[in-house]
Amino acid sequence: MNQYFPEIKKITYQGPDSKDPLSFKHYNPDEIVLGKKMADHLRFAVCYWHTFKGLGDDPFGGPTMIRNYNQSNEPMQCARDTMHAAFEFFTKLGVNFWCFHDRDIAPEADNLAETNERLDEMTSLAKKLQNETGLSLLWGTTNAFSHRRFLAGASTNPSPDVFAYAASQVKKAMEITHELGGQGYVFWGGREGYDTLLNTDMKRELDHMGMFMNMAVDHKKKIGFEGDLFIEPKPKEPTKHQYDFDAGSCMAFLQKYNLTDDFKLNIEANHATLAAHTFQHELEYAAGNGMLGSVDANRGDMLLGWDTDQFPTNLYDSALAMYTILRAGGFSSGGLNFDAKLRRQSIDPVDLFYAHIAAMDCFARGLKIAERMISDGTFEDNLKKRYAGWDTGLGAKIEAGKADFQKLEQYTIENGEPELQSGRQEMLENILNGYI
Amino acid sequence: MNQYFPEIKKITYQGPDSKDPLSFKHYNPDEIVLGKKMADHLRFAVCYWHTFKGLGDDPFGGPTMIRNYNQSNEPMQCARDTMHAAFEFFTKLGVNFWCFHDRDIAPEADNLAETNERLDEMTSLAKKLQNETGLSLLWGTTNAFSHRRFLAGASTNPSPDVFAYAASQVKKAMEITHELGGQGYVFWGGREGYDTLLNTDMKRELDHMGMFMNMAVDHKKKIGFEGDLFIEPKPKEPTKHQYDFDAGSCMAFLQKYNLTDDFKLNIEANHATLAAHTFQHELEYAAGNGMLGSVDANRGDMLLGWDTDQFPTNLYDSALAMYTILRAGGFSSGGLNFDAKLRRQSIDPVDLFYAHIAAMDCFARGLKIAERMISDGTFEDNLKKRYAGWDTGLGAKIEAGKADFQKLEQYTIENGEPELQSGRQEMLENILNGYI
Amino acid sequence: MNQYFPEIKKITYQGPDSKDPLSFKHYNPDEIVLGKKMADHLRFAVCYWHTFKGLGDDPFGGPTMIRNYNQSNEPMQCARDTMHAAFEFFTKLGVNFWCFHDRDIAPEADNLAETNERLDEMTSLAKKLQNETGLSLLWGTTNAFSHRRFLAGASTNPSPDVFAYAASQVKKAMEITHELGGQGYVFWGGREGYDTLLNTDMKRELDHMGMFMNMAVDHKKKIGFEGDLFIEPKPKEPTKHQYDFDAGSCMAFLQKYNLTDDFKLNIEANHATLAAHTFQHELEYAAGNGMLGSVDANRGDMLLGWDTDQFPTNLYDSALAMYTILRAGGFSSGGLNFDAKLRRQSIDPVDLFYAHIAAMDCFARGLKIAERMISDGTFEDNLKKRYAGWDTGLGAKIEAGKADFQKLEQYTIENGEPELQSGRQEMLENILNGYI
Amino acid sequence: MNQYFPEIKKITYQGPDSKDPLSFKHYNPDEIVLGKKMADHLRFAVCYWHTFKGLGDDPFGGPTMIRNYNQSNEPMQCARDTMHAAFEFFTKLGVNFWCFHDRDIAPEADNLAETNERLDEMTSLAKKLQNETGLSLLWGTTNAFSHRRFLAGASTNPSPDVFAYAASQVKKAMEITHELGGQGYVFWGGREGYDTLLNTDMKRELDHMGMFMNMAVDHKKKIGFEGDLFIEPKPKEPTKHQYDFDAGSCMAFLQKYNLTDDFKLNIEANHATLAAHTFQHELEYAAGNGMLGSVDANRGDMLLGWDTDQFPTNLYDSALAMYTILRAGGFSSGGLNFDAKLRRQSIDPVDLFYAHIAAMDCFARGLKIAERMISDGTFEDNLKKRYAGWDTGLGAKIEAGKADFQKLEQYTIENGEPELQSGRQEMLENILNGYI
Repeated sequence: MNQYFPEIKKITYQGPDSKDPLSFKHYNPDEIVLGKKMADHLRFAVCYWHTFKGLGDDPFGGPTMIRNYNQSNEPMQCARDTMHAAFEFFTKLGVNFWCFHDRDIAPEADNLAETNERLDEMTSLAKKLQNETGLSLLWGTTNAFSHRRFLAGASTNPSPDVFAYAASQVKKAMEITHELGGQGYVFWGGREGYDTLLNTDMKRELDHMGMFMNMAVDHKKKIGFEGDLFIEPKPKEPTKHQYDFDAGSCMAFLQKYNLTDDFKLNIEANHATLAAHTFQHELEYAAGNGMLGSVDANRGDMLLGWDTDQFPTNLYDSALAMYTILRAGGFSSGGLNFDAKLRRQSIDPVDLFYAHIAAMDCFARGLKIAERMISDGTFEDNLKKRYAGWDTGLGAKIEAGKADFQKLEQYTIENGEPELQSGRQEMLENILNGYI
Repeated sequence: MNQYFPEIKKITYQGPDSKDPLSFKHYNPDEIVLGKKMADHLRFAVCYWHTFKGLGDDPFGGPTMIRNYNQSNEPMQCARDTMHAAFEFFTKLGVNFWCFHDRDIAPEADNLAETNERLDEMTSLAKKLQNETGLSLLWGTTNAFSHRRFLAGASTNPSPDVFAYAASQVKKAMEITHELGGQGYVFWGGREGYDTLLNTDMKRELDHMGMFMNMAVDHKKKIGFEGDLFIEPKPKEPTKHQYDFDAGSCMAFLQKYNLTDDFKLNIEANHATLAAHTFQHELEYAAGNGMLGSVDANRGDMLLGWDTDQFPTNLYDSALAMYTILRAGGFSSGGLNFDAKLRRQSIDPVDLFYAHIAAMDCFARGLKIAERMISDGTFEDNLKKRYAGWDTGLGAKIEAGKADFQKLEQYTIENGEPELQSGRQEMLENILNGYI
Repeated sequence: MNQYFPEIKKITYQGPDSKDPLSFKHYNPDEIVLGKKMADHLRFAVCYWHTFKGLGDDPFGGPTMIRNYNQSNEPMQCARDTMHAAFEFFTKLGVNFWCFHDRDIAPEADNLAETNERLDEMTSLAKKLQNETGLSLLWGTTNAFSHRRFLAGASTNPSPDVFAYAASQVKKAMEITHELGGQGYVFWGGREGYDTLLNTDMKRELDHMGMFMNMAVDHKKKIGFEGDLFIEPKPKEPTKHQYDFDAGSCMAFLQKYNLTDDFKLNIEANHATLAAHTFQHELEYAAGNGMLGSVDANRGDMLLGWDTDQFPTNLYDSALAMYTILRAGGFSSGGLNFDAKLRRQSIDPVDLFYAHIAAMDCFARGLKIAERMISDGTFEDNLKKRYAGWDTGLGAKIEAGKADFQKLEQYTIENGEPELQSGRQEMLENILNGYI
Repeated sequence: MNQYFPEIKKITYQGPDSKDPLSFKHYNPDEIVLGKKMADHLRFAVCYWHTFKGLGDDPFGGPTMIRNYNQSNEPMQCARDTMHAAFEFFTKLGVNFWCFHDRDIAPEADNLAETNERLDEMTSLAKKLQNETGLSLLWGTTNAFSHRRFLAGASTNPSPDVFAYAASQVKKAMEITHELGGQGYVFWGGREGYDTLLNTDMKRELDHMGMFMNMAVDHKKKIGFEGDLFIEPKPKEPTKHQYDFDAGSCMAFLQKYNLTDDFKLNIEANHATLAAHTFQHELEYAAGNGMLGSVDANRGDMLLGWDTDQFPTNLYDSALAMYTILRAGGFSSGGLNFDAKLRRQSIDPVDLFYAHIAAMDCFARGLKIAERMISDGTFEDNLKKRYAGWDTGLGAKIEAGKADFQKLEQYTIENGEPELQSGRQEMLENILNGYI
């Protein structure tokens, strides 16, 4: 396993003073934090699409990155070479998980049956490589948005034939995810949305999506897949209006179609900010609804209006994300998947390592910062104090369902103007800086 | 009733060629459109707050508008004068409805009991003026966000005393709305949200808001108020994150707290665009969920990031809004409330007329455009054709719940690649221009 | 010339009541408006890149459009077929101008010399087709941003070798533009900008761009090209920060490097809005500086954060743009270039016609609306009245340079508080609606 | 001086481990960093307007903060009390500078002459307090945007009488700034811009602004004021389009009206991001043009679309800002002015201390981080290497003006495809994290 990145040795923890850019300064997988190994807290996953299939192209230009594993003229040979390269990369980087779309690992053939055969071959290879390396599949998914057949959506397509095609793809993708022992299966509604209401029946499309998801739940049970199903919110791209706009929209959808018991959310940092929410907001909202499943760890550029999918290197983001995740009980089936791509100018294979190291160290520091925040208890104590009124007296009565408008009016007339307390935002921001 | 706007006569319809800027060119209240009077389709309402209490101030400067009805040194005399001016304005403008917050019509006194007495006095005056003029109240609401006591929210306040205070206010506001024969009651979550998660327990706050809304439903039943309850989505302002971010978030909330039977949505154009949705999207989404209640008709500036609350003068917006509203069955208890304010430079009282005339004519034209769109049936026919696959064969089977992934895969393997059709967006946009 | 769009006949003007979607309802090229043919006011141009090289792909999926002119396995044969198709399209659509990048018309070969030979061949063909059809070239440009060699910019590249390569390309592109009788030459700074300041020397890069533009001026003079040079502002894409952010930034650049006499601006609607300006603002700003050269007529989606390059179909935009353009004296060498692409779902060749017809009719209506605005003089009269104070007395003195702070203070102390007048924004918006 | 904040003692440096929230953990004014005292690098200034005149009101609600220095019913007594409180605050906080608008320190009287007398009284008091405390004035400015007379702008007003009024105000404000030994004078174009082009002659307004600024330069010379003049870019607020949109627009303006020798830029963090630039971008752009004058140190909320003016607490921002400032030679007459306001919920006087401490410690850390970045030289070395091609050979020839398109084409044909190097963005971001 030293064929595709021959110049790179296994990345190891060398401490904060390391001068080697190909080392971890903070991520020490076996180190115990809050009673658990860092690796088990963070459950890092590498994504197959950006990392191995992305080559730096953008709407204004072609690929910039030249890789030694996609040089064959024969598509399936490229697929095999790429998978070997991927597992070499996973291993050298030291992650325990990976994620993929069906179309990432095997190119489409002339028809669905042949495409599925290709998937079977590549699934066998992946299984073998998983066994050899000890890697696990965090989650699988299907790509039902890149091919032109999905130009008007998959389960929300105006044509039921495309709905059926998408169902066939998801069926197969769920099956190979199951075969590979995947811990979850993700639905990202690639083109589930609309470009203009002038040609769209939104209600009918949403009803179809609800039916589709219920069929997926049925199929999951049928094949005995015990992983979690995740729905991934995203606004604005690629359709003008994506139905799974944000965690709130997804919760409205899941409730309406009776899917809350069978789904959790896969929160992506950059999708959160595109929807005008902070990453932490979406995590807290999901957690508050008992729906925090997994995380796509990346970041956007707050001054740009699309999914830049940059590697996460902001310590505030990683610290506050880990703080919320830890307080919500940590990951069970989910993890931190780096749904991130190299910048167009980062053309060298070694940049793949630099980028993942940066991201992993950023989250390792985020975990340690969150640990200190939790251990000190400053923020938690402040919260407790601020909401103390709800734990006794009037607040407790209200929470117990023993109040109504009449009683509350009586209370107010008797008690007069409420006392106010400062929100102390600036002080709390300074305290946060103290942890960073 | 010619005291406060003595230079203005009743605004009348004078047809499209009128050169009088103080006339309607398109709004002809008794004209029949699709079997109903224009006035009954549009149900225009003037809002009390911007129109009579707004004076052109903004975060960078004080008031610019001088009005003859707020010159008294005695607050209640100002309130009385203002209400007389308001009904003179309503009458001269020729609208049938008005809307208000409790604090718009009566200033707060030293304590809640006295404040409520002031409200009672002003309610009596409003009732008298309604009777004299034939005006109706579209909806009432409470202002539980301007006073410093609500700096950290009303029903989502960390202090249960403030929750109680807000409950007392809503109780009274519902009662006077009932007294005035209001057709609805609106909840806009002024400061229901947070500024920083560092000091916020979002889940607990949302649970409190759910309890509060359920108490409101109980109180509505108790007092026999038969109008509708509306919740009004808005993102970003005034708290950094407002809980009622958009229609989707509101639907998630209403479902979670079992409130869908008792609430509808009040969609505001500018709130829609601040949440990164089109106005029409929010209307369609509400309609698709059977939740389209009422409308705050204004517009934002698409290049500015706050609620500019401009008067609606864009014909595309009014046409597409009316198209959706008509197809959803039109308004029952709701209407078009001009939640809009004069620009800071529009300082003259006559500008209040110019602005409302512009808005009313814009929606009158929108209604007529929508009428033509519906009568021609071009868009509807196009939709039917586009989704025809769902009316028979495979589509009908899926909609009837007779499909599963297994059968759909079988179908796909047998039928191969789906046929694709153009979305024809540019052609449809050109057809739309043909109606304008 | 009926090979590539055999089902389409020449598009003709058939009046506003035409039911034929393949006709103009408003664009009547020979009709006289304000003393000049509509065609001469509007100077419509079709762009080669989106219209003939764009195939519906986006960052989330491959091409969706299948065209009969790019089926050959031989790149130069595709280029020839495409050019024949293009001139058939231009002719059937009835535009007088086209625009291109060097790399649109001829694919790159193995080295610059061979690439230039290909360009020579395609230039000959274009010249022949121009002669046969009577079409003219509005402007040419170079694509120095798609190839990976330009990943870090062209004239602002950290490597002088890339600067030289870009210079070579521009040299050739200017020469073939000259050969084809082009009326202008455009610089759009594709990747002139930066992704991160961590690796960028902005000042040095800007100095290099200044040198580059001065060399272009020298070369223009050397080859006797008498067309105009245009610089095209754009923010945010594809680099995080584009140096030519907006018209203001371009003016700062052109002044600093002594280029104002040799350049004008090419204003694009969607670039304006991405920079947080209205289209009309950028046109007015350019006009006010005597720099209004040409226009890329498209539109963005105000809720999306990238250059969606949609066909222009908003009548407000076209009317206000034409109002500014007419008042600035109309186009001399420039024109309205449709830098716009079909939506991904608009897959049929006929959609190219629908889209251009929609855009041309939109601007034809815009022209007629602007004509009425100018003929009526309402807006102009209002402006004159509003600024009348500057035409006499104190205002005239100030404009004549005869005032200083001392005198103005004296004047203010003597004259007291200035009189204020309403800005009348809402009334003016209503008047504008009267023209639409 | 212990009257208004009696519970607060002088804030002192107590090191990073201090548990006292009313201490500095990083700002140690006399500590030497890169050869200079921290205090002299940072030149912190407190702004008078937000800190002493701001009371937590926003567009949705009234004041929330109750202060002991504005309780008098007599406006000038409030002004005197407030100024005593301000100097007590400055002293206890330990800053060396303050900034003010004319209208912050003295309320307007019935006419300009009386207003100026009030200003004279308050200037005397300020001078006395400066002498007693050793504080200096960083800069003064005028408020020509809050009063209704400026509703349509000051120097860009349609009325020359308002132009004259604004000139009178600036004259006086410059004179009292001079009297107080101010190191600079700032122009922020409050309402210099427009709300709609329908009623605006942009070119004429800009010409007037150019004349106004030239008169200011003349007056500066006349009174012998030797401080710097600063122009402060800001987009979008309060007018829809502010003429001083960003640093680029300001540079275009200053060049056009021959003002570059007499002005520098005052860059505000939140204004930068509202204009879609990073704070560091605007600083670098100003520095690259030799125009970096002073800084308004605050921050916006990247998900909100207005000037939130939050206290700066982001270490990335402060580190990169200080890195740019230090490399540009540091401040001469300028400094770091905290143009920031407490959040509406931060109602206690002590929050003013918490907020400023947070901001000062954030910039103190930023300075130390920048010091390490500079001392290590990693980023500088990387830049040198990346642009090395410009120091010799072809690059040096180009920079020396010895190249033209002909020669560059020849070079390219001889040398072929340029070599490309990775931009290494992710690695550099990781290195940056290493410094934080």
